Amino acid sequence: MQTNIEESIKIYGKKIDDLLKEIIPPDRDDFLSEPIWHHLKTGGKRIRPAICLITCKELGGNPDEALHFALAIEILHNMFLLHDDIEDEDTMRRDQPTVWVKYGIANAINSGDYLLARAYHSILISPIPSDRKLKLLEIFNLTYEKTVEGQALDINARGVADYTVEKYLKLVRLKTGYYLACGMVGGAIVASENFEGTIDKIWALGKLMGPAFQIKDDLIDLTVGKGRGGVIGSDIQEGKASFLYAYTSEQAENNDKKSLIEIMTKQREETTDDDVKHVLDIYNKYGAIDHAQQYADDLIKQSYVIIDKIPTNNKTVFKDIANFMAQRMT
Amino acid sequence: MQTNIEESIKIYGKKIDDLLKEIIPPDRDDFLSEPIWHHLKTGGKRIRPAICLITCKELGGNPDEALHFALAIEILHNMFLLHDDIEDEDTMRRDQPTVWVKYGIANAINSGDYLLARAYHSILISPIPSDRKLKLLEIFNLTYEKTVEGQALDINARGVADYTVEKYLKLVRLKTGYYLACGMVGGAIVASENFEGTIDKIWALGKLMGPAFQIKDDLIDLTVGKGRGGVIGSDIQEGKASFLYAYTSEQAENNDKKSLIEIMTKQREETTDDDVKHVLDIYNKYGAIDHAQQYADDLIKQSYVIIDKIPTNNKTVFKDIANFMAQRMT
Repeated sequence: MQTNIEESIKIYGKKIDDLLKEIIPPDRDDFLSEPIWHHLKTGGKRIRPAICLITCKELGGNPDEALHFALAIEILHNMFLLHDDIEDEDTMRRDQPTVWVKYGIANAINSGDYLLARAYHSILISPIPSDRKLKLLEIFNLTYEKTVEGQALDINARGVADYTVEKYLKLVRLKTGYYLACGMVGGAIVASENFEGTIDKIWALGKLMGPAFQIKDDLIDLTVGKGRGGVIGSDIQEGKASFLYAYTSEQAENNDKKSLIEIMTKQREETTDDDVKHVLDIYNKYGAIDHAQQYADDLIKQSYVIIDKIPTNNKTVFKDIANFMAQRMT
Repeated sequence: MQTNIEESIKIYGKKIDDLLKEIIPPDRDDFLSEPIWHHLKTGGKRIRPAICLITCKELGGNPDEALHFALAIEILHNMFLLHDDIEDEDTMRRDQPTVWVKYGIANAINSGDYLLARAYHSILISPIPSDRKLKLLEIFNLTYEKTVEGQALDINARGVADYTVEKYLKLVRLKTGYYLACGMVGGAIVASENFEGTIDKIWALGKLMGPAFQIKDDLIDLTVGKGRGGVIGSDIQEGKASFLYAYTSEQAENNDKKSLIEIMTKQREETTDDDVKHVLDIYNKYGAIDHAQQYADDLIKQSYVIIDKIPTNNKTVFKDIANFMAQRMT
C-alpha cells in the first residue's frame, strides 16, 4: 500500500499545483507575487494536501470537493515557513536565500500574511454546502491557532535550563500535531455528513503522530542531517529544544547537564564542531538516541490502537498514512 | 448627532473590552498573552468596532449579535499594528516600546499571527445563522487581504521617484478603505437579510472615506503632529509617501522635485530639521496643503452622494459616521 500513497501524492500534487497558480497567480506586479513565488518555486512535495485528498477518497468522498481545502493546508504550511524563517533567522531554504533575506523582513512578514488570506479564501470558495464549509473553516482556524501556540513555546524554548520531555511533547503536539491531522480531518468532513465519530479520533491521532514525526525529524538531524549540505547536528548549533535535549536534560548528572546547557545556550555562530561532538557524546552516554527511536515507534503503535477505533471499513489507509508520515515526511 | 456617536462609542467600548478579555484572556503563561496585552493595554478608542455596532443598530438589527464581528475588526486592527511596527521599524507606540522592541521580532510576528486566529475565532462563534456567518467571514477575509495588498504597496513606496496621486489613491483605498467600511458592512449584514443593495454602497463609501481619512492623517502630521511628542513632519523624516508628497511630486519643477526626492529617500536618522523645513516650503510653494484639504473635503461630499443611494430611511447615521471618521479618527 505504501507505494499507492506515493503514487497518489504524485497524481494529486499536479491538481494542487494547478489550483495554487489559480489562487495565487504568479507574475503579478503587486510586491507579493514575486516574494511568494520565489519561495514556492523552491519546491515542496505537496504531501500535506495529498493526504487530505487520499483520506477523502478512501472514506467514500469526492476528492475534487476537498481540493480547495487541501490547497489551504499547503498554503498555510508555506505561510508558516515564511514567518518561521524570519523568526529563526534562517538565511537559506532548499539552497535559495529565504524571502526575508532577499526581499527584507517587511515584505516577508507581509507576504506570509497574504498567503494566509488566500488560504481562507480558498476554503471560502470551496464547492461544498455551507455547514461543511463552516466546519472546515473551524478546523482550519483551530489548526492555525494551535500551531501558532506551539511556535510561541518553540521560540521561547531555546537553551532553556529546565527543559523536560513533558514540555517537549506539549510543544510538538501543538506545533506539529494539529497540522498533521488537519488535512485528514478535512478530508473526512468533505467525505461524509456523519463525521463526528471520525474527526475526534483523527485529532487524537495527530497528538501521537505529531510527536512521532518530530522525534524522527530530530533523529534525522543527528544521522543524515537535514539536507543543509550534509551538516550533522544543526539543531545543536541552533540550541533547538529537541527530544534528545529534553530527555538527556532530565536524565543527565549535574556535570553533564551543565555542559549540555552551556553549549545549547551558545549563539549559533559560537558553537564549535567540538561542542556538537561533546553534546552527541552526552546523548549517547544516556542512551538518548535509542530511547528516542523506541519512543517514536511506541507512538506509532499507539496510533494503530486509535485507528482501530475509527468507524470506517478502511482502516488500512490511516495506518499507511501514519507510517508514511513517520518515515518519509520532511 | 455627532455627540451621539461619541456617546455610543463609549457605551459600546465597554462591551467590546469585556468580550476582548474573554477572547484573548490576559495573564496566560503562553508567551502570547504577555506581549499581546503589553500592546493592548496601551489603549485604543475602539472606534472601529463601535461603528459596526452603531450601523447594525441604526439599520434595525440587534447590536449584541454583531459584537463578535465588531471585536474581530478591533483584533485585526491590533494585529496590523503589531506587524506594521516591525515592518516600519517603529520603536514606540503610545509612549511604550513596541512589542518587537520589548519581546523580539519572533514573538512580535507570532503574537500578530495569534491575534488573527482569534479574530476569525470570534466570528466563527458569533451567535448568528450559518449563512450570515459565512458572509461575515467573506467580507472579513476580503478586508484582511486587501489591507495586506495595500501594505505591500506602502512598504515599497518609500522615497519612490515617480510617485503620483493615482498611486497614492490606489494604496490608501486598499490599505484604509476596506478596513473603514468593513465594520459598517458587517453591521448591515447582521441587521438584515436583504443587505445586498446596502453593502455595495458601503464598500464604495470606504473607497472615498479611506483616502479622505488618510489625507487628513497626512495633514495632521504637518500641523499638530501625530502625538509623537509634538514632532511635526515625522512622515517626511520617514520618507512616507503621503498625499502631499504624491501631489507635489507631480506638480513640482525639476529642481524642487529633485530636492524633494533627495530628502525623502534619506534614512530617517539622516533627515535633519532643515530638510523637513525645506520639504514643507516646497509643499507650500505648490499649494499642496490647501489642495489636500480641499481634496479630502470633496471626497466627503462625494460620500454623501453614495449615502443618499443607500436603501435605508436612516441615512443620517452614515453621514455622521463619515464626518466623525474624517475628523476625529486617529
